[in-house]
Amino acid sequence: MTLTGREMRTHIDEEGTLTLSLQSVTSGEPGDDEVIVRVEAAPINPSDLGLLLGPADVASLESSGDETVRFHVPEERLASVYGRLGQSLPIGNEGAGTVIAAGRNAKGLEGKTVGMIGGGMYADYRRIAARDVAVLPEGTTAAEGAAMFVNPPTALGFVETARMEGHSAIVHTAAASNLGQMLQKICRADGIPLVNVVRSPEQARILRNIGAQHVVNSRDEDFTVQLTAAIRETGATIAFDAIGGGTLGSEILHAMERAASQNASSYSRYGSDTFKQLYIYGGLDPAPTTLNRTGFGFQWSAGGWLLFPFLQKAGKETVTRMRQRVAAELTTTFASRYTQVIGLAEALQPDVLRRYERKATGEKYLIDPRLG
Amino acid sequence: MTLTGREMRTHIDEEGTLTLSLQSVTSGEPGDDEVIVRVEAAPINPSDLGLLLGPADVASLESSGDETVRFHVPEERLASVYGRLGQSLPIGNEGAGTVIAAGRNAKGLEGKTVGMIGGGMYADYRRIAARDVAVLPEGTTAAEGAAMFVNPPTALGFVETARMEGHSAIVHTAAASNLGQMLQKICRADGIPLVNVVRSPEQARILRNIGAQHVVNSRDEDFTVQLTAAIRETGATIAFDAIGGGTLGSEILHAMERAASQNASSYSRYGSDTFKQLYIYGGLDPAPTTLNRTGFGFQWSAGGWLLFPFLQKAGKETVTRMRQRVAAELTTTFASRYTQVIGLAEALQPDVLRRYERKATGEKYLIDPRLG
Repeated sequence: MTLTGREMRTHIDEEGTLTLSLQSVTSGEPGDDEVIVRVEAAPINPSDLGLLLGPADVASLESSGDETVRFHVPEERLASVYGRLGQSLPIGNEGAGTVIAAGRNAKGLEGKTVGMIGGGMYADYRRIAARDVAVLPEGTTAAEGAAMFVNPPTALGFVETARMEGHSAIVHTAAASNLGQMLQKICRADGIPLVNVVRSPEQARILRNIGAQHVVNSRDEDFTVQLTAAIRETGATIAFDAIGGGTLGSEILHAMERAASQNASSYSRYGSDTFKQLYIYGGLDPAPTTLNRTGFGFQWSAGGWLLFPFLQKAGKETVTRMRQRVAAELTTTFASRYTQVIGLAEALQPDVLRRYERKATGEKYLIDPRLG
Repeated sequence: MTLTGREMRTHIDEEGTLTLSLQSVTSGEPGDDEVIVRVEAAPINPSDLGLLLGPADVASLESSGDETVRFHVPEERLASVYGRLGQSLPIGNEGAGTVIAAGRNAKGLEGKTVGMIGGGMYADYRRIAARDVAVLPEGTTAAEGAAMFVNPPTALGFVETARMEGHSAIVHTAAASNLGQMLQKICRADGIPLVNVVRSPEQARILRNIGAQHVVNSRDEDFTVQLTAAIRETGATIAFDAIGGGTLGSEILHAMERAASQNASSYSRYGSDTFKQLYIYGGLDPAPTTLNRTGFGFQWSAGGWLLFPFLQKAGKETVTRMRQRVAAELTTTFASRYTQVIGLAEALQPDVLRRYERKATGEKYLIDPRLG
């Protein structure tokens, strides 16, 4: 059996033209340990957009009408994607669908609905190693299982990281996101105080509706005062920041220091003894991170946080425990809500693309290639 | 026996006036486990200046002629020193001198030349716990032993930190400083590749004269290219930065990432697998730290590095080993060179103050209260 289907590709050339297109790809028979999955659902995560659009200037979008879209990457940003120039890269970290063919050692998977991870999910068909798919629990749809590999272990990973590094409460930004809602549910269930930082009253409401106690709006005039109070009340000394650019991370470290200093007995110009950790796990704002160190002493660290290095560090036992929890709570704690389900070609229509590219908090898109 | 002597004090009031003055202080008899040391040498370290001048606007200096100097702290910077407002603080982290009186359990120290740490060293006399002094090796002067507690263990601490955290080569900024020269000597003796970042050809010469192989001038036009080449050659993945403000730390992380990517086999938009560590241990530039994350992926960390928390983490065995090395190499590896030796009152003369306040690399001042 050979199958021909479409596969979305992103390509940047040396002149800085980024091209998105659908390629026709024919896949051969699955290998002994492989399966072929008909993709029925693949979420557009912020991490997918990073690869899809790179550092392109989104306003430069040009559509040639043949399911091909072009953007311009400003010259000064080209260096940051030097490693991918000239390569036609498939996209889509995770997805779910039905196994329509299986190799000799994977026959048991035939006909099953599976979730999968490994890139290249924005396609009609995905040939993949059997070990990279997970059979969804009975009665779970592909749409429900399409986003089980990135957000759920990331949210659980934040909590594990906080525990491993000795922190008892957490600050989270862009907290009304799908990921943020998962984190709120986990923290509530596990009794871990969580300070949610959002940008609007609507986002605050989303979180309060699922039981959030501490929600702070960064656009409120007294944000700093509110944040410091929430941090003092919870004792949060670790923050996970999806935004990255600008001064928000710095403001959180400041608030932690202020909360710690209010309990200090004597002055030290090196700041408090309280160790403050900021992890940047996303780049909703690609601008530089500005850390105003005056005011948070020397007991701090800021760094990148990525899921896969974390999983490697956490070890097998923790990862197995996390996986079991994700499977058990897939339609509750770890349910994703989608703003819209779109087809593969539809994802390259300028107006649709502009909508999901905005990364508005709480908005999330799902690709179902069967829709066109 | 009671002794009356001068002690330098720094004070910031609620209106933002910073006052430096000499107070007359009478010290009583030493306690059983205490000694009284006549201070004969106390260095002005950058860390002392941080307490001495706080965030004052140095240009606002006003001298009233009676050994009292005043500065203005701009209102927006007052919050960062909230914890010290209204307190009259002694200054001078470390020093050396002669024990002129000793308590019952410390009689063996009488007449000895000792080095000491604990603050308040810019004074004629310092009453101090016997355990906080170290008898200098035979034939060592107070001037030679005055700076053994901060710079030498800091330089050794960088090397220990690099080893403990799995790095095999180091980048250091403001590298021609007294501390930087010590680090260069240690790294040369221990066979650890060191990339020295300086700001002038003169500074580069100082380091080459003591055997430095990798010296890069950040004011050269091709600084980035030179830095990347030196990092690739040495394999440096950890940097210690005395400057803090601006983009230099970010540029170093970039250069490390570029060096790592040149060996990478496939593109990842999350950057290379090479973990890059930036430690900020000083604040020669108090401006915010700007981290341009685009271009160094997610495998990075930036944080504060401070000597005392490091010593606590390193444990007794390492600290003892470090102390022995400092004592053995006090007049070689760990020799400090002073631009000028000044008196206590002289240190509050406007023209002298302006000179040491500039923190010019390679310039270092020593206070000898006996000079006036």
